[in-house]
Amino acid sequence: MKKINVGIVGYGNLGKGVESALENQKEHFVLKTIFSNRDNLTSPFGNKFDKTSNLDKYEGKIDLLFLCGGSFNDIEKIGPETIKKFNTVDSFDTHAKLEKYINKIDTIAKKSEKVAVCAGGWDPGLMSMIRLIFNSIAPTHTEANSFWGMGVSQGHSNAIRKIEGVANAIQYTIPNKKIVKNCGKLFDYVPDAQKKHDRLCYVVLKENADANKVKDEIVNMPNYFQGYNTTVKFVTNDKLTEMQKKMFHKGYVVKNFKCSDKYASKMSFNLELDSNPYFTAEILVALACAVSKLSNEKKYGCYSVFDLPLSYLSFENRNELLKTTL
Amino acid sequence: MKKINVGIVGYGNLGKGVESALENQKEHFVLKTIFSNRDNLTSPFGNKFDKTSNLDKYEGKIDLLFLCGGSFNDIEKIGPETIKKFNTVDSFDTHAKLEKYINKIDTIAKKSEKVAVCAGGWDPGLMSMIRLIFNSIAPTHTEANSFWGMGVSQGHSNAIRKIEGVANAIQYTIPNKKIVKNCGKLFDYVPDAQKKHDRLCYVVLKENADANKVKDEIVNMPNYFQGYNTTVKFVTNDKLTEMQKKMFHKGYVVKNFKCSDKYASKMSFNLELDSNPYFTAEILVALACAVSKLSNEKKYGCYSVFDLPLSYLSFENRNELLKTTL
Repeated sequence: MKKINVGIVGYGNLGKGVESALENQKEHFVLKTIFSNRDNLTSPFGNKFDKTSNLDKYEGKIDLLFLCGGSFNDIEKIGPETIKKFNTVDSFDTHAKLEKYINKIDTIAKKSEKVAVCAGGWDPGLMSMIRLIFNSIAPTHTEANSFWGMGVSQGHSNAIRKIEGVANAIQYTIPNKKIVKNCGKLFDYVPDAQKKHDRLCYVVLKENADANKVKDEIVNMPNYFQGYNTTVKFVTNDKLTEMQKKMFHKGYVVKNFKCSDKYASKMSFNLELDSNPYFTAEILVALACAVSKLSNEKKYGCYSVFDLPLSYLSFENRNELLKTTL
Repeated sequence: MKKINVGIVGYGNLGKGVESALENQKEHFVLKTIFSNRDNLTSPFGNKFDKTSNLDKYEGKIDLLFLCGGSFNDIEKIGPETIKKFNTVDSFDTHAKLEKYINKIDTIAKKSEKVAVCAGGWDPGLMSMIRLIFNSIAPTHTEANSFWGMGVSQGHSNAIRKIEGVANAIQYTIPNKKIVKNCGKLFDYVPDAQKKHDRLCYVVLKENADANKVKDEIVNMPNYFQGYNTTVKFVTNDKLTEMQKKMFHKGYVVKNFKCSDKYASKMSFNLELDSNPYFTAEILVALACAVSKLSNEKKYGCYSVFDLPLSYLSFENRNELLKTTL
């Protein structure tokens, strides 16, 4: 297979992770340029930078872009733009908008004869694939339970930061140990959604802020904290800044049922990550392999991880995979 | 979707498991007939039986056959025959022959305008999918390690039974605890293939057989036991018969590596089964959903689990899956 010329859009942790993952796969990829609107960036691997506003000039020179901005601001805007001229891979993860986003990109991609794989990452992405596999087996039994953490939830951290009197905040999602245990022990167990995870918040207060008022606002915030077992701790900004540097996360999916009302059958998947963004990057690079194969076959459009034959994730030839991996 | 008319070929534990799994999914499947060459069979669900030799008469009346014979004797012969007139799902698992078998069925299926999914089960099958997903992520790192057991290996049990002086035998494959632990602790660890599993053999001797000679023959048998940590125990036929009734098994896949030489990343999959054949049956029924969708789309041919978009495993509509499962 011809080497794939790629670009990275966005140079936060995810963009840096993709750059690092590509460094291990020079056999398949050539990283042409990293796009960012920030100035004076340097790459540990000596890669070139350009402004995101110059992207259009790379049409025909770059086959595929890794969209590494945040879902909330960047990808929703840049996804439908870039697919007009490039194949793309992204990790869009705003759950409520996934279906609409994927179908929107699909329409544009079919017109522009491009391929996108959207919502790749570890969840949505890897854990979604595991869920779908588990749920497809014995589908009349209770669906697989997913757990996230201990790890940071950006959405919940942002929600706290918007509260008056809060200077900075971080929120850790922590699976409830008892419920995790029950999911592995009881068959067809359906836990209360709000009891599955506990929420641990570290908050830096602004000067003269009312700690009790802030705490009340957090624990009673609808959708985010209300109904959850929430702990709020106040810390110094130095301590919080240290916490924000750590990017660990965990994930767990389990389905536990009885075949034929008799035979216990437990499937589980476990993920332990020192770095959420660097691992996400490894998945995006696997999805880029799928994009490239689909594009070579002129199968244009937008794909989710549910729409890809698994063999497309690997540069290995399919018959070779049957021999080595099946 | 129209209900799928199906048949089961073979009424051992796997066939009975498929029958039981279908009983839970009457919304999608109609089990028309169970085919076997044995006489006087009865079904706990009141299903009908016919001789396997009468299969041809069901052309046009049955859409899909579950081939539930053993790989060694049945499937390799019946697979290429049945695909001429029916869609099929099988769990062919003779590893060395998988690629050739799949490509042979593919040629016939394309001609007869049928769809087959072959080598479905938990390994090959479910664990293969997990391996491929794990290996596609960070492909330059060491491949995922698979472990099987504690559970019975039919191949190894059969091999012992062929030894002179052996009346009956069962072999349990047991993952080596220390190596399993190392795989989860060390990064890019490649254990010695023969040290990964220990082999525990229970043997019933024929009258006047030489126990020491039998033991020697077992532990020194090339490919099967030589080089492995093998334990041989002699038991009564009653005890062995009890053991043979239990169908439990386990599986484990793990990949443990560092992203960017820094960030520990561990993925693992764990399977615990009271009944190997009944769980295998649940997977075959999920694959039947894929066969039916592919057949409706006239995408004829033979598929492995690597060739299927995951959404094909589920009767749920793809856009619904994006909402509920992605």
